[in-house]
Amino acid sequence: MSLKIGDFIAKRAEQVKGSAIREFFSLTEQEDVISFAGGFPSADYFPLEQVKEILMENISATGYSFLQYGPTEGVGQLRSSILEYMQRLGVCGEESNLLVTSGSQQGIDLICKLLINPGDTVLVEEPGYVGALGAVKNYEGKLVGIPMDQKGIRTDILERYLQKIFKNNGKVKFIYLVPDFQNPTGISLSFERRRRLMELASHYDFLIVEDNPYGELRYEGEKLPLLKSMDEEQRVIYLGSFSKIFIPGIRVGWVLGFKELITKMISLKQSTDLCSNILGQYLVLGFYQGGHFEQHVKLLREKYRRKCRVMLKAMEHYFPSQIHWTKPKGGFFIWVTFPSYINAHELLLKCLKEKVAFVDGKGFFCGCRGDNTARFSFSEQTEEDIVIGIERIGQILEAEINSSRLTASR
Amino acid sequence: MSLKIGDFIAKRAEQVKGSAIREFFSLTEQEDVISFAGGFPSADYFPLEQVKEILMENISATGYSFLQYGPTEGVGQLRSSILEYMQRLGVCGEESNLLVTSGSQQGIDLICKLLINPGDTVLVEEPGYVGALGAVKNYEGKLVGIPMDQKGIRTDILERYLQKIFKNNGKVKFIYLVPDFQNPTGISLSFERRRRLMELASHYDFLIVEDNPYGELRYEGEKLPLLKSMDEEQRVIYLGSFSKIFIPGIRVGWVLGFKELITKMISLKQSTDLCSNILGQYLVLGFYQGGHFEQHVKLLREKYRRKCRVMLKAMEHYFPSQIHWTKPKGGFFIWVTFPSYINAHELLLKCLKEKVAFVDGKGFFCGCRGDNTARFSFSEQTEEDIVIGIERIGQILEAEINSSRLTASR
Repeated sequence: MSLKIGDFIAKRAEQVKGSAIREFFSLTEQEDVISFAGGFPSADYFPLEQVKEILMENISATGYSFLQYGPTEGVGQLRSSILEYMQRLGVCGEESNLLVTSGSQQGIDLICKLLINPGDTVLVEEPGYVGALGAVKNYEGKLVGIPMDQKGIRTDILERYLQKIFKNNGKVKFIYLVPDFQNPTGISLSFERRRRLMELASHYDFLIVEDNPYGELRYEGEKLPLLKSMDEEQRVIYLGSFSKIFIPGIRVGWVLGFKELITKMISLKQSTDLCSNILGQYLVLGFYQGGHFEQHVKLLREKYRRKCRVMLKAMEHYFPSQIHWTKPKGGFFIWVTFPSYINAHELLLKCLKEKVAFVDGKGFFCGCRGDNTARFSFSEQTEEDIVIGIERIGQILEAEINSSRLTASR
Repeated sequence: MSLKIGDFIAKRAEQVKGSAIREFFSLTEQEDVISFAGGFPSADYFPLEQVKEILMENISATGYSFLQYGPTEGVGQLRSSILEYMQRLGVCGEESNLLVTSGSQQGIDLICKLLINPGDTVLVEEPGYVGALGAVKNYEGKLVGIPMDQKGIRTDILERYLQKIFKNNGKVKFIYLVPDFQNPTGISLSFERRRRLMELASHYDFLIVEDNPYGELRYEGEKLPLLKSMDEEQRVIYLGSFSKIFIPGIRVGWVLGFKELITKMISLKQSTDLCSNILGQYLVLGFYQGGHFEQHVKLLREKYRRKCRVMLKAMEHYFPSQIHWTKPKGGFFIWVTFPSYINAHELLLKCLKEKVAFVDGKGFFCGCRGDNTARFSFSEQTEEDIVIGIERIGQILEAEINSSRLTASR
């Protein structure tokens, strides 16, 4: 009998698209394209010499254990170090609250695996992180986007939504958000709204997933408390990552949360990938124990701060006045809103012809919105290329706006 | 409102047990215990010097790319190398057929994520690999065990089962099996049964997941063809792993299968962990390109062959005649069957008091069977400790059998 693949695919995987996005990314990553599309950290800042040293020391000192299978929950010493680090961020926890993951993306996936029944409501910021939207969809969760403004998600709109579904005996499983320097907008959730969100979670009985890959990369203003540090009822599941403050290629992140949830997540992880890669965990541990983190993060802040300012300044200089964008105080991203008559995807295709790229914003929305929005990342390009790229896009935008004026006046 | 965790757990995760098994393993892994429980490769054979060299060369030559995020489907050069390697095993494939995974356990998980709707029937060998049983359960698949004998799964019983459910308009999504030196029995599927299995898959329209972590570790007899090499209808999804033939701590495995399935799996993986760790992938690549694999696998075969023979000989010498066990021609495991009146778990507790351990077999079965069975792994202990450990267990078994005789004669 010849094979009909469609008969075998599970319902959850039917929605999974082919590789359209991935194909697009391979376009933007051609060598001669100045791309603001990807959200990678700059490889120029990887602490290569220290990585080299730590690897050699480990191979000599740690013996063989760093090449062997390891505990599903993570290497013991690394877990202790992460708890120590979290304490400095105002979060207390014990070993039983912590699970090392294969990047924080795996943390999101395991949370969805643990919590989502098909049809369960999951709230997200809108626009929100694509990787989280994808993970929720893979477990057939029902995504509901809560709009944002300059202070993060609109807690007033959130409250009205909760009142409505509460009346109909509905339930929200959890809200996923990136409170600090959000991907894709760069916006941070204000202190008042953090407090309000905690109150709403308690009153309407839902969990909060706080994903914080960029928190350490603050370029100005004062630190805001982590939601996890305000969490009296153990409702917050915190996701941390070493990808942006150390190196991403080793895939080491962590989840910190309520013991009972973590215990189940460890069991789920065991059948998911047995354990996260051990070599990478020892590498992070060596970097931490060597006392390198503080200085390295300081360096990263300086470098990325400059890039952020260069991009903002270039936008101010080269972008027509009809264009608006966020002014992030940290992280990797600036969110751009074009006039409603500009379709960001079509604009992107024109930009690609001129060897410059960004990501159009539609994919960051739950529904069919965001046609005139885009995410710009300043993390990977040099300051020089940032200026050149933004100038190019500015020229294309000028032309677009002029031609639309002509069309309108005809 | 205080938090009731039970209200949040998804149905699929309700069955997930706490850490009973993990706690047991921590018992068996105390330093003074001679443990045949774990299935780890021996760290004594890790090619440490070559690992060191490759890492240093990569850090100097490959530049920064081995520390950066990488493609979800895997590092391009590694994928080419794996395809080349598969060709030597009689399997042709293109890049679009291949996905690098975070260990082959992730391959199993992604296959389940892609294929299983709650309630779908998945067939497994009985006894079968615990990690696969766990993954299927996590997606609420219905596990059906097919019994084995010395030639692997009983294809006659499989056929009768298929006839029965076919009559009732039922369907099997896939069968998962480890045809070479199976975990936990060490048994290999005979050539005739391989052929029969392929015919049945075609006739009754199901997929085959062939997991092959031990195939290269054959200590005697002739190689049998991979199911994947006999696969004319693209029904076989092949899982490969570097954990047993190189090092496990870097978590690098692969899936090779029908293009449409692989494309969807890549998209699923993207929301699961973005990409597998890149450093580990370059490490495997360096080892492969350096031409080290062949010689290393030859060495492993010699070393493990000796251990296997030492354990078999010790069992023959020290185990009472009422005990039976498999005689594997490769891999890491020997499967032991005690007389029906011996409960393997209780026996294990007695053994632990004498500082020797194995895994009792119950967990490898789908239902409540296998109370008098156990898995013994010879991979990790030294030849000396294998003899000491088996002698100790032999003495405990003698005592057990004698005391049961006394009870019976009273």
